Amino acid sequence: MRERAFVREVGMRDGLQSLAEIMPTEQKIAWLDAEHAAGVREIEVSSFVPPKLLPQLADAEAVVRHALSLPGLTVSALIPNLKGAERGLAIGVHEINFVLSVSEGHNRANVRRSTTESIEDFRRVVALCHTAPEDQRPRLTCGLATAFGCTIEGAVDEERVRRIAVEVAEAGADAIMLADTVGYGQPAAVERVFRRVMADVAPLPVCGHFHDTRGLGLANVLAALNAGARSFDASLGGLGGCPYAPGATGNIVIEDLVFMLGAMGFDTGIDLDRLVEVRELVHQALPDVVQYGAIVKAGLPKNFHAMQAAQAAQ
Amino acid sequence: MRERAFVREVGMRDGLQSLAEIMPTEQKIAWLDAEHAAGVREIEVSSFVPPKLLPQLADAEAVVRHALSLPGLTVSALIPNLKGAERGLAIGVHEINFVLSVSEGHNRANVRRSTTESIEDFRRVVALCHTAPEDQRPRLTCGLATAFGCTIEGAVDEERVRRIAVEVAEAGADAIMLADTVGYGQPAAVERVFRRVMADVAPLPVCGHFHDTRGLGLANVLAALNAGARSFDASLGGLGGCPYAPGATGNIVIEDLVFMLGAMGFDTGIDLDRLVEVRELVHQALPDVVQYGAIVKAGLPKNFHAMQAAQAAQ
Repeated sequence: MRERAFVREVGMRDGLQSLAEIMPTEQKIAWLDAEHAAGVREIEVSSFVPPKLLPQLADAEAVVRHALSLPGLTVSALIPNLKGAERGLAIGVHEINFVLSVSEGHNRANVRRSTTESIEDFRRVVALCHTAPEDQRPRLTCGLATAFGCTIEGAVDEERVRRIAVEVAEAGADAIMLADTVGYGQPAAVERVFRRVMADVAPLPVCGHFHDTRGLGLANVLAALNAGARSFDASLGGLGGCPYAPGATGNIVIEDLVFMLGAMGFDTGIDLDRLVEVRELVHQALPDVVQYGAIVKAGLPKNFHAMQAAQAAQ
Repeated sequence: MRERAFVREVGMRDGLQSLAEIMPTEQKIAWLDAEHAAGVREIEVSSFVPPKLLPQLADAEAVVRHALSLPGLTVSALIPNLKGAERGLAIGVHEINFVLSVSEGHNRANVRRSTTESIEDFRRVVALCHTAPEDQRPRLTCGLATAFGCTIEGAVDEERVRRIAVEVAEAGADAIMLADTVGYGQPAAVERVFRRVMADVAPLPVCGHFHDTRGLGLANVLAALNAGARSFDASLGGLGGCPYAPGATGNIVIEDLVFMLGAMGFDTGIDLDRLVEVRELVHQALPDVVQYGAIVKAGLPKNFHAMQAAQAAQ
């Protein structure tokens, strides 16, 4: 029996939100269906931000409603504030992601409040979620952005990451997400920070969200795996490149992540061949968006499927 | 004091040999000079193959002779057979690299002999080198190609890798190189095989040669680092892409490797800014060759140099 590893698609939110070209709702739904058919069981479907601020995600309710109809899919949505959490609760998403930045400067640039104020906001989201009956309460993930460095402040203090993780865990998070928002992370720091945070928030799961901006995305996943993490975000074709760094990739490529985990002997439940096929569908909807990825170009190693089957049978 | 890690440039051999367009000798020399000025201290400069077989490297003697004039540079050359070893010895290279494939099928396709016959060839190379006075004897590295999989045979038995490594060590190798020739390697196997081989050939150093064909190059470096390896091959801009997989990168990108090692706190002795500048020189000489790399696009993290200086001073 292979050990399970969990991969969450975030391209529909993190990827799309940086694009000016709006993807029609029916194409988002086709994308959802195709990834679900490929075996993806966790998808961050949209964000409950004010539609005027982010027209790309103005169809959040419609897309989330369709996602909720897909059997076995854990549907998550980003919520920036209490208003977003109310929308998420009302529609019944399975998981709500709240994000604050460890870097004070980044948090202020992003949401015009201090990190401490954002932690207070998170407490209010927790309190709101706890007004729902327990069996209808969404899982609450608190993401710590810029956990491995910040374009504004440079280095981020590792002890501060640990302290904030413990604080939001005590405030009621069901999971912690450590995010290398700007691609500053390096494996030694990633393993160290994951180990410290995981030890201090146990038994809460700690997920990894890495960007491949400087080429270390999968090495950072490996570092987090070595620390014991088993849940990772990624996006189809690495969708989500930073608009300020042309040619620099954004999220790690979900196809390559699924390949790495599968090759290492983990069971992701995802059919890699079918996942790779989804690229064409997204390419037709977004022809000008560059898709990254190595496995799509090089193909799987010879006998890969047979080796996978043998591992699964052991 | 930071721990030392060793990076060897192999683009001038492994990279150039796959190109049809011949790089003039003076441009190879300019490339050598520029990398040496950037602090690179190990370069595989050429290969002593018959000039008719590989016109690209017909100037091996001239390039090696220039390389030998650069202070502090360890000059290595690939030698395919005894004749090549004679040329390497005659000119006085510091290091001779002999490569055989762990995969029987790959070895036969490559050099039309069995792996056992190639090990016998290696013994003859050892014997030849031992005819030189001890202070003029080149370091002899035996590379084990397809150590992590093979396009012909698929999976490669890990115990066979270990056994062959021990055999060539006992035959007189000064170092072992484990090569993921076709980019089939994955971190779990890499760490496992490095640990086994390093334990059994100690105190010989074991170096890593990874291709980034399937995006796992730097993750595989990290896995080998975790096993204790400290020497890695790489090439400028990832030069050396497989001609049979368009768009698939070849060697890991030396700039990104130097970034990862430096960010992790290792001292490579290489000035990353100056190394990145060498790309332009090679681009002018080989304008049609695609150069890969993430750090060149994204730039270094904010305060990176200050953090490096602080680590060095600790």
